[in-house]
Amino acid sequence: MNIDGKAYRSIWLADDGWSVRVIDQTKLPHQFTIARLTTVDETATAIRTMVVRGAPLIGAAAAYGLCLALRDDPSDTSLVAAKEKLARTRPTAVNLRWALERMSDAVGRLLEDQRVEAAYQLAAAICDEDVAMNRSIGEHGLALIDTLWAKRGRSGAVNILTHCNAGWLATVDRGTALAPIYLAHDRGIPVHVWVDETRPRNQGASLTAWELARHGVAHTVIVDNLGGHLMQRRLVDCCITGTDRTTAAGDVCNKVGTYLKALAARDNDVPFYVALPGPTIDWSITDGANEIPIEQRPSEEVSKITGRTEEGSIITVAITPEDSSAANWAFDITPARLITALITERGVCEASADGLASLYADESRMADLIRRRRVH
Amino acid sequence: MNIDGKAYRSIWLADDGWSVRVIDQTKLPHQFTIARLTTVDETATAIRTMVVRGAPLIGAAAAYGLCLALRDDPSDTSLVAAKEKLARTRPTAVNLRWALERMSDAVGRLLEDQRVEAAYQLAAAICDEDVAMNRSIGEHGLALIDTLWAKRGRSGAVNILTHCNAGWLATVDRGTALAPIYLAHDRGIPVHVWVDETRPRNQGASLTAWELARHGVAHTVIVDNLGGHLMQRRLVDCCITGTDRTTAAGDVCNKVGTYLKALAARDNDVPFYVALPGPTIDWSITDGANEIPIEQRPSEEVSKITGRTEEGSIITVAITPEDSSAANWAFDITPARLITALITERGVCEASADGLASLYADESRMADLIRRRRVH
Repeated sequence: MNIDGKAYRSIWLADDGWSVRVIDQTKLPHQFTIARLTTVDETATAIRTMVVRGAPLIGAAAAYGLCLALRDDPSDTSLVAAKEKLARTRPTAVNLRWALERMSDAVGRLLEDQRVEAAYQLAAAICDEDVAMNRSIGEHGLALIDTLWAKRGRSGAVNILTHCNAGWLATVDRGTALAPIYLAHDRGIPVHVWVDETRPRNQGASLTAWELARHGVAHTVIVDNLGGHLMQRRLVDCCITGTDRTTAAGDVCNKVGTYLKALAARDNDVPFYVALPGPTIDWSITDGANEIPIEQRPSEEVSKITGRTEEGSIITVAITPEDSSAANWAFDITPARLITALITERGVCEASADGLASLYADESRMADLIRRRRVH
Repeated sequence: MNIDGKAYRSIWLADDGWSVRVIDQTKLPHQFTIARLTTVDETATAIRTMVVRGAPLIGAAAAYGLCLALRDDPSDTSLVAAKEKLARTRPTAVNLRWALERMSDAVGRLLEDQRVEAAYQLAAAICDEDVAMNRSIGEHGLALIDTLWAKRGRSGAVNILTHCNAGWLATVDRGTALAPIYLAHDRGIPVHVWVDETRPRNQGASLTAWELARHGVAHTVIVDNLGGHLMQRRLVDCCITGTDRTTAAGDVCNKVGTYLKALAARDNDVPFYVALPGPTIDWSITDGANEIPIEQRPSEEVSKITGRTEEGSIITVAITPEDSSAANWAFDITPARLITALITERGVCEASADGLASLYADESRMADLIRRRRVH
């Protein structure tokens, strides 16, 4: 995507051919900084501290983290240790585990001296596949936006509410929830995005707003409390969010607060779409509310906030009383019944086991078999 | 209520017998500062900039604002001008207009040289009545909390979620939504409050948390996005909020985001209570969504935030990209159908025209007559 005219991905191989470059997302929107990852430990820290975040991107980053580990030591012990270290960084998003499994399955079969090269090749492939999937999500979602625009008589702008950041910064490129929005904008459908700031880490205000501004897409930042009112006043044509993990039954685990917007959308007959690439689906589970571990993050993310002063320095301030504690669960579950449709790289489907099975027949059949075996 | 052992109200007459003292709520929780209001202009500014806020408190402050205006000039012209000036400060809460009408009705009938003394007497009465109503709301709400505690087998703590600040700082004393909570705590029912931070102005994190901490009530600050997840996980026994305006049919206009919590409460069978004194009811309207003006406040409340640095200085920082705009509607409407019950100074009732009529027969009958006359 474009940053002031220059094309970027959110992660790429450095010119040295082995170290990894990422945009430091903890510094946005105040500073555009590129970080360099040279070890698996640095990569694990970058994922845990959210220098890189977003389900697809942490999958890609973890893949490169394994490359860096194997470069230091290509043994089985090293591979297993690196995989465990990276898997521990974030518990909720399933792409992380998916990428690690795929990498270790592939390179684990090779001789030690073949592993590094193969790992880098596969990590690059995972990145390219992500971009291709997101391009496809964009096309499928575009059709939905076009329908909404037609419903408006092709006048005015289509108002889309999104939560958190499922833009290109959350992926390798193009984004999931924002992919259809960028495509609509590029193809001349006027869109306006209501950007939930997305406390506590404000990925909406910090990342989504920044991305949209760089690409020239009209948008307005709002507090997370406002979406319900906007829907009551008919100021939202649809919601589109991403997902960190989707169950085989279509429940969606996404950034905390997504569930509240889905409830408001249902109460006001506003379509609620969730965009996702296949690797975000966890075929092993069907009950989102009870089977997905919800990450608890440091309470300082709630009690403190970072911004820029008028002089341009970046400062962290406390916003709660010194003697009050804070709790910080990072995700919630939006039940499938509240989701109008899922937008995947293979097309649009109902948020249900049948809907997903219609697009992912093999995966769904395999998951069914495994579940049945578990029961017996 | 207590601030570190010393009893305070949120507004009181200064020792000079005419100027007005208020706690400056824009400085909390970082600094405890008492401001002095000496003119109607200072009072209007204090209401508009939210030095004082909360539906019942701005009613009381407006009453004293009229006193200060009459002290400078007791003429009809002065009275009308002051009333208009104060009414314009905040459009949504109805208590403001209620207090102004009551004051001007009463003093407007008197000779000019009787007006100042009468105005101060009535303003003091409005304050004392507010405290008495809140004491009564506390008793009625306490019974509901006690029922929830019994349901828990009188073990553990009753977990109550609240939004914004409807504590003693929002009233003259005791609070509305928090009145039953303080009473439960004082009478030995263990309560724990989930405090929605309540963006954009963070009245939850700044005021509710601070109040509860001063009084020793267990509480945890959470982002506004989290309540849905907590209810899904059965970590909330009930919600209690305040209201800035309640229609004759039981719709509630309260701080933006209240509606989202009511939706989550309904979806998870969690009781959702709204606490209110009678003057918060607008008997002239029945359709909350279409008849209540929703205040739009400066976008800087969204794009900037104030907190304290580690060194203890109070600093405002920007948290959105420089080229992104923000929108800031301050309230939303929670339809009566989502509200389990209203807690008033006259008892607990269904959120409906019949429910309110059962407690406020005269007001309801009068409002009916006026509405019928309007239709014919």
